[in-house]
Amino acid sequence: MLRLHDYWRSSAAYRVRIALELKKLAYATVPVDLVAGAQRTAENLGVNAQGFVPTLVLEDGTALTQSLAVLQWLDDTYPEPRFWPADPTSRARATAMALVIVADIHPIDNLRVLKRIESQFGADADAKAEWYRHWVSEGLGALEAMAGPGICPFLGGDAPGVADICLVPQLYNARRFDVDLTPYPRLVAANAAANELPAFQAATPERARPA
Amino acid sequence: MLRLHDYWRSSAAYRVRIALELKKLAYATVPVDLVAGAQRTAENLGVNAQGFVPTLVLEDGTALTQSLAVLQWLDDTYPEPRFWPADPTSRARATAMALVIVADIHPIDNLRVLKRIESQFGADADAKAEWYRHWVSEGLGALEAMAGPGICPFLGGDAPGVADICLVPQLYNARRFDVDLTPYPRLVAANAAANELPAFQAATPERARPA
Repeated sequence: MLRLHDYWRSSAAYRVRIALELKKLAYATVPVDLVAGAQRTAENLGVNAQGFVPTLVLEDGTALTQSLAVLQWLDDTYPEPRFWPADPTSRARATAMALVIVADIHPIDNLRVLKRIESQFGADADAKAEWYRHWVSEGLGALEAMAGPGICPFLGGDAPGVADICLVPQLYNARRFDVDLTPYPRLVAANAAANELPAFQAATPERARPA
Repeated sequence: MLRLHDYWRSSAAYRVRIALELKKLAYATVPVDLVAGAQRTAENLGVNAQGFVPTLVLEDGTALTQSLAVLQWLDDTYPEPRFWPADPTSRARATAMALVIVADIHPIDNLRVLKRIESQFGADADAKAEWYRHWVSEGLGALEAMAGPGICPFLGGDAPGVADICLVPQLYNARRFDVDLTPYPRLVAANAAANELPAFQAATPERARPA
């Protein structure tokens, strides 16, 4: 069985949980408590050299890291439903939208960077929240423009694609930090459409949180 | 003809220049001077909602953003030489190595974030260099472990792949910031092997710098 090294509140892990649910794949969870520092244990570093979650461990023991690479593997291996469209230009646009979140919002706003601005610059909770909101706003503003009005209800069109899989955890997180989402009606609508689907409902942090 | 919105010192643009050279595709350059703020002009925002470089504009006017998405489009459209291997597990590993740079080093260390730690926290040149080196070291240490000793000379094996295309600009940048690369012999060797190739030589910042 597939094993997902997971932390319930990690938005990168949340992406992979959504993807596994959409592909209707059974998996076992290996909890990695980021707040307790469990990502730096020998066990987690043995499957993830970066000391991150998520990691998807295949039946043969191969460990796949980086959520977007895991999504690619899932789409290559289990083609239905498709996360990426078929034609090259649409594929590149879907990847580009995903990367606005995967590369240009999330890595700058995740826990290790928030800890670093505290340790290097003495950032307090307010300064960290300001930092967080700055990068989310920069990224979501661009993503709203990239999404455009014509493609709906999902960023992937009539079915959720790779950009939706990345969007939902990012907006979940943004709400935790009280980011005003009213400037992004297209993104909020895609998020709402996704959250109607059982696969997205099964993958939420609340459902993934260890008892 | 393909048109590349480019800045000679942008490492994301450098990736795309390498990729275009490897695929032996002719292209015209549209210079975007990041230091002068040209990324925020209406012209650049019209092709790149994030206000970034690179953007690859296709013959039909379609604008492709996000360097890794552009690499994907090039590989889907012009299959030889391949940037990604064929089997799903190798593909995911190649993408994961690329993402260590594309998501977890470069976006935290690029110009807009260095400017932000200056404006929000008053970081001076030394503090910015410390920040830069911290994230480069975190990422390259993991990438050195992921690369492993068995695959050589390139990260892609016997030919440069997507991870090599991302590695070379990152190490070029790391040297500019005087990062000690001796802990990463595998990466330094892959970089040296790539820099022997005409495609990599044609794409360097020195060659791309406007006269």
